[in-house]
Amino acid sequence: MPVTNRQFTLAARPVGLPKESDFKLVETPVVPPGDNEFLAQTLYLSVDPYMRGRMNDARSYAPAVKIGEVMVGGALAKVLESNNPGFQPGDIVEGFIGWQEYVTTNGAGFRKIDPSLAPISTALGVLGMPGLSAYFGLLDICNPRPGETVVVSGAAGAVGSLAGQIARIKGCRVVGIAGSDDKINWLTGELGFNAAFNYKTVQDYVAQLAELCPSGIDVYFDNVGGEITDAVLRLINTKARISICGQISQYNLEKPEMGPRLLAMLLVRQARAEGFLVFQFADRYEEGIKQMAQWIKEGKLKYSESIVEGFENTPRAFIGMLRGENTGKQLVKV
Amino acid sequence: MPVTNRQFTLAARPVGLPKESDFKLVETPVVPPGDNEFLAQTLYLSVDPYMRGRMNDARSYAPAVKIGEVMVGGALAKVLESNNPGFQPGDIVEGFIGWQEYVTTNGAGFRKIDPSLAPISTALGVLGMPGLSAYFGLLDICNPRPGETVVVSGAAGAVGSLAGQIARIKGCRVVGIAGSDDKINWLTGELGFNAAFNYKTVQDYVAQLAELCPSGIDVYFDNVGGEITDAVLRLINTKARISICGQISQYNLEKPEMGPRLLAMLLVRQARAEGFLVFQFADRYEEGIKQMAQWIKEGKLKYSESIVEGFENTPRAFIGMLRGENTGKQLVKV
Repeated sequence: MPVTNRQFTLAARPVGLPKESDFKLVETPVVPPGDNEFLAQTLYLSVDPYMRGRMNDARSYAPAVKIGEVMVGGALAKVLESNNPGFQPGDIVEGFIGWQEYVTTNGAGFRKIDPSLAPISTALGVLGMPGLSAYFGLLDICNPRPGETVVVSGAAGAVGSLAGQIARIKGCRVVGIAGSDDKINWLTGELGFNAAFNYKTVQDYVAQLAELCPSGIDVYFDNVGGEITDAVLRLINTKARISICGQISQYNLEKPEMGPRLLAMLLVRQARAEGFLVFQFADRYEEGIKQMAQWIKEGKLKYSESIVEGFENTPRAFIGMLRGENTGKQLVKV
Repeated sequence: MPVTNRQFTLAARPVGLPKESDFKLVETPVVPPGDNEFLAQTLYLSVDPYMRGRMNDARSYAPAVKIGEVMVGGALAKVLESNNPGFQPGDIVEGFIGWQEYVTTNGAGFRKIDPSLAPISTALGVLGMPGLSAYFGLLDICNPRPGETVVVSGAAGAVGSLAGQIARIKGCRVVGIAGSDDKINWLTGELGFNAAFNYKTVQDYVAQLAELCPSGIDVYFDNVGGEITDAVLRLINTKARISICGQISQYNLEKPEMGPRLLAMLLVRQARAEGFLVFQFADRYEEGIKQMAQWIKEGKLKYSESIVEGFENTPRAFIGMLRGENTGKQLVKV
């Protein structure tokens, strides 16, 4: 049994974009598994936008991480020792392990991963929370219909890249917004988006969107918020549906940003904006995973992973993801 | 047959709150009814917040009124002469007559009113567009459940006063927001609202709402927008539903107001905001009118009318309504 566990704890509440010094690498003894518990070794860590919210001392849908606590997050691990009859050594498990190399747990909230289905890392991406967010957030919240125009912000990210492809599978015209020319080329060249643009080089988002969405916008899958969303809202069609998956443009702001009031636009367009957390679809995860695994097998759904090697690089990977350096799912290989 | 028709045309596009000089009283000859047409005399004119939007030269869900055109609006009229077999002299009809004393029409978009059901003026209020907006906008968009907390802004207006009472009928705790102490007393004393406050004398809307909504806010029926809505959004519960019926606080602004970005709040609360126009429920109007007439008969639903006498006072009534001087439905008796 390993004796030393490395963990990243929250050292300071970030101001704006987190810095590496906001995290602290600590060593603690590995906890031997007790009755009904197992010990597992982390293989891959997921870094996701929502973690930025947990670093703030603010009321949200989940409690904030306290200073000195291990950073939260989903991860994939291999069971080393087990006193829990539901888990055997060698099993691959996914759960809220946090940023650490080993976890001792009774397994509550963990699921076993079938390595024969797909590469195990997909359990943190296309066949995990990001994939399920794209699947249910697009299909359940927006019900896109063939021929409709769907705009996706954060389109080259873990969730957006999948949401856009699922909309294509459903017969929609899909327009992506992302932050580099390489991402734009990937979206239109590899993933089959009908069009995409780089918000860092385009000045007038409304004009660009109007050109790429000649029939207006019926569905908006929003990962970003801010000025990109302001522009999309100006072009929505009657009965448009907006799925609010993330608002990453706002997460590092030191104080809430002001923007044009949007509700009158929803009114005159008889439109709907709805926020969701993937957990609300928990009883239907299996449906989503099965469907997406099928689409991957058929070559209809592609995914990309950006992998940083080494546990010690987790904060760097997280900060890079917040800066948009990843294409597809950002992982840390421990 | 009368020979002279008086009309109010749009004389100038208002800047901010409309002035009486933005309208022009003109006299034109009464048009005799042709084949399949009828001539009717206006009895009551409705003045409503949405008309302010039609005075702007801006794209919206309906075309703007042009300078020199008769102001739009629903009204109630009595048929004088008819060449249309569907309408007889003496019939009371409701339709988009506009601000004028006589109308000659083929009857498209008009409905006949049954004077035995309720006082005919209710066809412009509780048993007309305002009532149907309250009924469908609350019940269909928000699906309020017994025990939930419902907040209504513009609560003493034609729509809000009904939306709040319908929520009470459905077993909700209802909190109203309005602009005078008399209105507050009417809401809580006459209409059965559980609580209400005067936004003109309360400083801290969030603190006041938090006190009156100890279990948070499940449903918000919004007629007003702006800072009142900002405050409500801070207190919504998980899975809250927001019905956007109007944004009267914004209609007279010379340029769009900035406000705190709200979409992140919808996200963390898994909440939904949806705009509607009553016309989208047109095929179910009969259901709504029947149910509300029943509630009125049972004494469960009360309504109030503010009536200004004299066609020439229509602009004054309209401007007063925009300033919140009415309680319940604002009408002009011609």
